[in-house]
Amino acid sequence: MKNVISSSDFTRKEIEEIFSVADSIKKGKRPKVKGDKVVALAFFEPSTRTFTSFDVAAKRLGFQTTGFRSEHETSVAKEESFADTMRMLSSYADCLVIRHRYDGAAKFASQITDKPVINAGDGKREHPTQSLMDLYTIRDAFGKIDGLTIGIVGDLKYGRTVHSLMSMLTAFKPKRVHLVSPLQLMLPRNFLKGLNYPYSETSDLGKVIADVDVLYATRIQKERFPDEMEYNKVKESYRIDCETVKRMKERAIILHALPRITEIAREVDRTKNAKYFEQARNGVPIRMALFSKVLGA
Amino acid sequence: MKNVISSSDFTRKEIEEIFSVADSIKKGKRPKVKGDKVVALAFFEPSTRTFTSFDVAAKRLGFQTTGFRSEHETSVAKEESFADTMRMLSSYADCLVIRHRYDGAAKFASQITDKPVINAGDGKREHPTQSLMDLYTIRDAFGKIDGLTIGIVGDLKYGRTVHSLMSMLTAFKPKRVHLVSPLQLMLPRNFLKGLNYPYSETSDLGKVIADVDVLYATRIQKERFPDEMEYNKVKESYRIDCETVKRMKERAIILHALPRITEIAREVDRTKNAKYFEQARNGVPIRMALFSKVLGA
Amino acid sequence: MKNVISSSDFTRKEIEEIFSVADSIKKGKRPKVKGDKVVALAFFEPSTRTFTSFDVAAKRLGFQTTGFRSEHETSVAKEESFADTMRMLSSYADCLVIRHRYDGAAKFASQITDKPVINAGDGKREHPTQSLMDLYTIRDAFGKIDGLTIGIVGDLKYGRTVHSLMSMLTAFKPKRVHLVSPLQLMLPRNFLKGLNYPYSETSDLGKVIADVDVLYATRIQKERFPDEMEYNKVKESYRIDCETVKRMKERAIILHALPRITEIAREVDRTKNAKYFEQARNGVPIRMALFSKVLGA
Repeated sequence: MKNVISSSDFTRKEIEEIFSVADSIKKGKRPKVKGDKVVALAFFEPSTRTFTSFDVAAKRLGFQTTGFRSEHETSVAKEESFADTMRMLSSYADCLVIRHRYDGAAKFASQITDKPVINAGDGKREHPTQSLMDLYTIRDAFGKIDGLTIGIVGDLKYGRTVHSLMSMLTAFKPKRVHLVSPLQLMLPRNFLKGLNYPYSETSDLGKVIADVDVLYATRIQKERFPDEMEYNKVKESYRIDCETVKRMKERAIILHALPRITEIAREVDRTKNAKYFEQARNGVPIRMALFSKVLGA
Repeated sequence: MKNVISSSDFTRKEIEEIFSVADSIKKGKRPKVKGDKVVALAFFEPSTRTFTSFDVAAKRLGFQTTGFRSEHETSVAKEESFADTMRMLSSYADCLVIRHRYDGAAKFASQITDKPVINAGDGKREHPTQSLMDLYTIRDAFGKIDGLTIGIVGDLKYGRTVHSLMSMLTAFKPKRVHLVSPLQLMLPRNFLKGLNYPYSETSDLGKVIADVDVLYATRIQKERFPDEMEYNKVKESYRIDCETVKRMKERAIILHALPRITEIAREVDRTKNAKYFEQARNGVPIRMALFSKVLGA
Repeated sequence: MKNVISSSDFTRKEIEEIFSVADSIKKGKRPKVKGDKVVALAFFEPSTRTFTSFDVAAKRLGFQTTGFRSEHETSVAKEESFADTMRMLSSYADCLVIRHRYDGAAKFASQITDKPVINAGDGKREHPTQSLMDLYTIRDAFGKIDGLTIGIVGDLKYGRTVHSLMSMLTAFKPKRVHLVSPLQLMLPRNFLKGLNYPYSETSDLGKVIADVDVLYATRIQKERFPDEMEYNKVKESYRIDCETVKRMKERAIILHALPRITEIAREVDRTKNAKYFEQARNGVPIRMALFSKVLGA
């Protein structure tokens, strides 16, 4: 593996190999890498969780990191082109980790440089390392991904993590994916074409809540709504609390890429169904596994 | 020692042990620690000096650091809760160092996580690592803390370092503490209750200047005063210059947590009484000693 | 060598020694240094390229770094003096790398501290490590600096890199330096006094383009012009594209300290004359060589 660009680049076998490396990292076995590497974290868009877990993953492998955590810290502010900034970083560091608001930014970077490029989320579609964390957490809970019913709830229109996850799921055989969203935040039609697993669409979480093994919640952003009343109505109807949990299967799990605002009530944190903190924690071993693949011996 | 939360948590014996480790660090002996640790510096409130000395202390022990140096770099900007941010960091790193504007932030964090938490200053009261530096510098100069007369001058109402120092002093037996401040910046009454050493209050620095062994100056912030003339009067009356030094005991020392603006004239820097730069320098060995206590073998 | 303050501090012999260390670094030989050093990067003025290459250079030698990348991250925002900030950093770290908008900032810092100070660009005149990269890239292309004709084009009035390069060139014997700029951006008269090599001044790039071995382009900043039309005219007349390259000597090279905006057309990147990316890449070995000189065994 040279680059990590798109969720759709991974074969099932590659994903399972990464999970297996992550398993052994969690048991305390560090993959063999040469520790004198420098990783550049090029975050044009801020993200504490993703930035910090990449930073820590690199450091736990004995690497050093450099880079920036917002566009304001770069010469892009002096109107330097993205290409020139990438050329610079790739001439200094051994690997580039890129976060950007534009679709295709990571792919473009990989065409400019010979150094490995890892997509830490770009545009509206791709966040492959997050999707690996999502699926790894599911596999951890159920021992498998095939055959599960997955409900994805909230903002399916703009949610990058949702699009990326749905794409990576095509490497597996989920029983069904329930897409739950208000009408104005439905999954864009073109995403449906590439799906090779059964799915349904609804705006009523109540209709599918008892059926899911995995409930994947997302943040609904106020600014997507022209009208605050409309926003509040949607927010309320998709809020997950202990009442929601009672209606779920006993072993069902709840995921969220975090940060969460009010989508999941705090009281849910203490239930055994809440797996979103574990999902976040898996960011370090998954990203260590990826670094070991692209920078390994 | 697991956490470093409050100045009042330390016994005299613990403080003396930390001083003794710091002594040997200053002589070039590095405490034994496992170097593969990652420390998260979570600074919700900016502070160059404290941030940098914690950063360097960790690195001089062979640790790596991660984290952020202002709230703007975090998902708190996306309205994530402090608790969720702490959960994330504690799942990535081996130790949390927290700076926050709210009282109790570090304590709250320590209740959420199993990892050691160090308070790098929170709210209006606690800055225990600064107080250790303060007392260590006094002990270095006099070989003791007991029996000394200490004058604390300036903003005693809002000054976090003052409150923290006065609390840690209860582990020792100072002869007397002179509290020198304008009326509107006097020490809050509830702080006086916990004191087990003699103290006096005055607004006239001249009355006590010849009596002190230690003069602890603080920054007086303009924004505390409704009226600029009032501010300027206070600023002038507490300004320490070479004339002030002449009225002090010959061996008396001057401390300041820095940054100083105009409270201490530059001319004082060259006197042998000025110990504030040494006090700042002691930040690294004291914090190395603390890291070795909470993360040591 | 203790400090790196000014381009004029270097003898020809010292420059050639640094180049020779950089040569062996590029061949994969790391200079012998003790890896337990901490370098403070004190960037009061932002600069991605310079900051990152210093950061990576330190880390590739096994050092750790600390510091800040903009004034807003420091207590200067609380009105702390530059001198006090420098005292603090020098008491924590083993070496200071300083970037500042004021002339003499690095020199002033070196007078305050016993630790080595490296000037990473200050004021309108000095950027000695950039000049070393510039000359190293020229020497790499031609095997020498003596006897070459160098054209410097663009903003010669405010361009720090230009002033610094012209100063360091006095250690060599260039055949001639052509200074090409619009009238309002000519080299300040006092700079001409110190030059010990032949030079000419013109505002017409066409007149000298066929004569130069090295074309050193600079960014022309819009804000230097009272009138946008004037700016656009100048910008056009100094823009380097493939037509320009055709009129140059076959082996001539093009340099630019980057970031470039429109001064050099993208199409030029693919010509063998374009050496500005290599010039940027040389930042790491040159700065590693400097660190090894000031912090070496």
